[in-house]
Amino acid sequence: MAILLQRPHAAVTCVLLFCVAGGLSMPDPRHREALIQLEASMQTGGQVVLTDAEQRLDTLLFQMKQEEIVRADFPPAMHFFKARDLIRTSPIFSLLQKMPKGGALHVHDFAMVDVEWLVKNVTYRPHCYMCFTDNRSIRFIFSSRWPKALPRCSPWTLLEHLRAEVVNTTDLDNSIMGNMTLFTDQDPETVYPSQDVIWDTFEQAFQALWGLVTYAPVFRDYYYQGLTQFYMDNVMYLELRALLPQIYELNGSTHDTAWTLKTYQEVTRQFTADHPDFFGARIIFTIHRGVNASVMARVVEEAMKLQRDFPDVMAGFDLVGREDRGRPLWYFRDALSLPVERGVTLPFFFHAGETDLEGTEVDQNLLDALLLNTSRIGHGFALPRHPVAKALSRKRGVALEVCPISNQVLKLVNDLRNHPAAALMAENHPLVISSDDPAMFGASGLSYDFYEAFVGFGGISSHLGSLKELAINSIRYSSLTPKQKERALALWQRRWDKFVSENAF
Amino acid sequence: MAILLQRPHAAVTCVLLFCVAGGLSMPDPRHREALIQLEASMQTGGQVVLTDAEQRLDTLLFQMKQEEIVRADFPPAMHFFKARDLIRTSPIFSLLQKMPKGGALHVHDFAMVDVEWLVKNVTYRPHCYMCFTDNRSIRFIFSSRWPKALPRCSPWTLLEHLRAEVVNTTDLDNSIMGNMTLFTDQDPETVYPSQDVIWDTFEQAFQALWGLVTYAPVFRDYYYQGLTQFYMDNVMYLELRALLPQIYELNGSTHDTAWTLKTYQEVTRQFTADHPDFFGARIIFTIHRGVNASVMARVVEEAMKLQRDFPDVMAGFDLVGREDRGRPLWYFRDALSLPVERGVTLPFFFHAGETDLEGTEVDQNLLDALLLNTSRIGHGFALPRHPVAKALSRKRGVALEVCPISNQVLKLVNDLRNHPAAALMAENHPLVISSDDPAMFGASGLSYDFYEAFVGFGGISSHLGSLKELAINSIRYSSLTPKQKERALALWQRRWDKFVSENAF
Ligand SMILES: [Zn+2]
Ligand SMILES: [Zn+2]
Repeated sequence: MAILLQRPHAAVTCVLLFCVAGGLSMPDPRHREALIQLEASMQTGGQVVLTDAEQRLDTLLFQMKQEEIVRADFPPAMHFFKARDLIRTSPIFSLLQKMPKGGALHVHDFAMVDVEWLVKNVTYRPHCYMCFTDNRSIRFIFSSRWPKALPRCSPWTLLEHLRAEVVNTTDLDNSIMGNMTLFTDQDPETVYPSQDVIWDTFEQAFQALWGLVTYAPVFRDYYYQGLTQFYMDNVMYLELRALLPQIYELNGSTHDTAWTLKTYQEVTRQFTADHPDFFGARIIFTIHRGVNASVMARVVEEAMKLQRDFPDVMAGFDLVGREDRGRPLWYFRDALSLPVERGVTLPFFFHAGETDLEGTEVDQNLLDALLLNTSRIGHGFALPRHPVAKALSRKRGVALEVCPISNQVLKLVNDLRNHPAAALMAENHPLVISSDDPAMFGASGLSYDFYEAFVGFGGISSHLGSLKELAINSIRYSSLTPKQKERALALWQRRWDKFVSENAF
Repeated sequence: MAILLQRPHAAVTCVLLFCVAGGLSMPDPRHREALIQLEASMQTGGQVVLTDAEQRLDTLLFQMKQEEIVRADFPPAMHFFKARDLIRTSPIFSLLQKMPKGGALHVHDFAMVDVEWLVKNVTYRPHCYMCFTDNRSIRFIFSSRWPKALPRCSPWTLLEHLRAEVVNTTDLDNSIMGNMTLFTDQDPETVYPSQDVIWDTFEQAFQALWGLVTYAPVFRDYYYQGLTQFYMDNVMYLELRALLPQIYELNGSTHDTAWTLKTYQEVTRQFTADHPDFFGARIIFTIHRGVNASVMARVVEEAMKLQRDFPDVMAGFDLVGREDRGRPLWYFRDALSLPVERGVTLPFFFHAGETDLEGTEVDQNLLDALLLNTSRIGHGFALPRHPVAKALSRKRGVALEVCPISNQVLKLVNDLRNHPAAALMAENHPLVISSDDPAMFGASGLSYDFYEAFVGFGGISSHLGSLKELAINSIRYSSLTPKQKERALALWQRRWDKFVSENAF
């Protein structure tokens, strides 16, 4: 069985030879059972041996899933915006919320915290100005004096004043909220008819909240609040993709990149001190893929410096922004080869294959990420269409960071049972489940994405062992050192055992 | 390269070892190019060597696809009912219509011919009666006397009389047509909100046209017309899944199964005599999976007899009807083992894996079809989720009959770029393209499905070689004898060369 874990394909072939040798005869029920078991053992978690208590919980889970799957309104088949309320009533979801899920390895800096917190907490702080852009979005700034007008934006209004003037501040707050998330109560297919429309709205929403979250006091609180929300969702570790932007103070002065990284480090330390069963967080420095080659070279230089100066908190480097419209990795090959050329360590965590444009230049990102020695792959949605990249990823243990809700909302797939990770989980391809930009999608933490993975593309055949392996994967494929992984795993195991004993009847 | 064709996976591993050995160094552009080429060579048609003329045509095709793929309204991403008009204007589609596509291996008896022909030709024949059912469907019968009333149906009206009475016969004809197909001009998502609704409508539509197509003179004409429509679409061979129902005459007398099969044989002979460049057709006898085990045993007995008595026209046996609601293959294992037990030949062509209910009993059909030694698999939509079944299908050369439009209309997948066959084509898994029930979907022949496969899940990387291999596959994986395959391939090659020379500039 240990051999299977290493090389399932080789093992199958042996069994199949026997199987083929069987040839023309009545199908033998034992042979059939053996093949069914073999297939079950190949899936994510298929080799996990469950304790008695885990088996009881697994039986419970199986019953829940049986009931869930016959629903006419099966949540994974629906758009998440419509499915969210249903998911919240699901007993599987409640269980997943309580379950220690390990680490969240693919989350972006300014989509960690639900937008309600931003509006109810942040925009009610003093010195908060807002203006309305030509294209019906909004911008914010905190300032001790009246701020300078922005191009293509109305004159600034102090939000305090605006709130005093309007009749219904709830409407105003809801309208602000609507500008900072993709989530909507309306029909998502109508509001977002195409990938272009939704990506535009996505980028507008980031710009809308930008002035709030890059204000130094908010920046700290936002991150602390983000850690809190993941912690409350029973996530114990985070690898945050962060743009490390200039953070500003009320008087308009700004801080450099190192300050921002250091602040992440300090807040993480504070949070971990306040919550000893939280393991920590590390930062993947990201840059928008819209830049040109020389900017990229400068940023990679900076990343190498940060990696050297902050080896504890800095996990590595990545490019962000819509792959289909941005420059492919191969365009940046010189800049991205600098670390190797100089013998300097800078781990990569490239987004790749978040596309359905099969066979285009962008679609080569998957192979190029692997050639550039990426440590993990962000999304990898297109991987099953690339047998060479797939074999490389498996062989090298380069895990995919699968973000189901993100892929659905950004219109790569409708019915999550058809997510390509269904096939990958069936053969235990290295992967972790993450949530990308939960606040943008009206989700939070990891539980919603675990639900879609487990109930949606996991199918009936995925079980408690699958969930356990997914959680362990999030530590196994993290950027932590082997020593740290051991400690994290021990911490996770304690929490897991407690979870099992409290929920297995 | 020949080795690659046999065992692509083994070959990859070798290259990957070298690749991994490469380790931490700047990515070598030649190495990258080699991996890209390796991946390209692994796909369906990746090993096909093109002639000069074929290369010119391929260049043309590539340009067309580049233009098609940047369209905002990209047809394979849309529901076929909305995409059909767009597809008709596509230059790739025009080319695919002209292209000799080989055989159609998965088509059902009473969905070959467009419903317009049924209405405009068949329902205008004398002695045609119609009634309206309680659930707003219609039924037909041809009869020399006034027919006996049907339960849950209005009294019969002679259509001739009805047409004389109504003001607008066009409206009447359109309404009849609408009852015999799933195709609609309205929004398909609204009309068919769930799999249950569309399968119910599907079965009602078959019942609506049943009384027309089982009338002996119509039965012959319908089949001849069906062959004509496939022939006009440059399909040269057909394997028809046929229920072989009782066919009736005007006086109410009926014929037995053998008569029906013999009639198929005669009409095929007639058609082939009229069209010498048509290769022929064979029949896969089908039964609805709703029957019980003892009925199945009787039908298998009958199938074995037909196979013995009509070895030329009879290709084998299959079960039809919605898998998710019907009985799984394993339920019928005793009946389906009868031929092997008696040492009698009865090839199977099982529908399997036309489901997204992963892990259920029905989802075992794929493995069971293989254990029952199926010659091909109808659909196999769920195959990528079953690594053992997938390996078996590949190893034994059990081809999948992929019917993209059917899977979309019957709500297994929305965006056809996400069809599981995308991954299968990327690794040249044995498969053919077919159209299942074209008349039900508002399609015809094979060209629409070839379009979805080639432009949709084929991606930019699939090319003329892929099309060529798909066409050859339809002969390679047919039920023909090796000798017949040789003749069919020679006939196809002549037509292919002509097609290439007429379209390559
Ligand atoms: Zn991301
Ligand atoms: Zn079918």
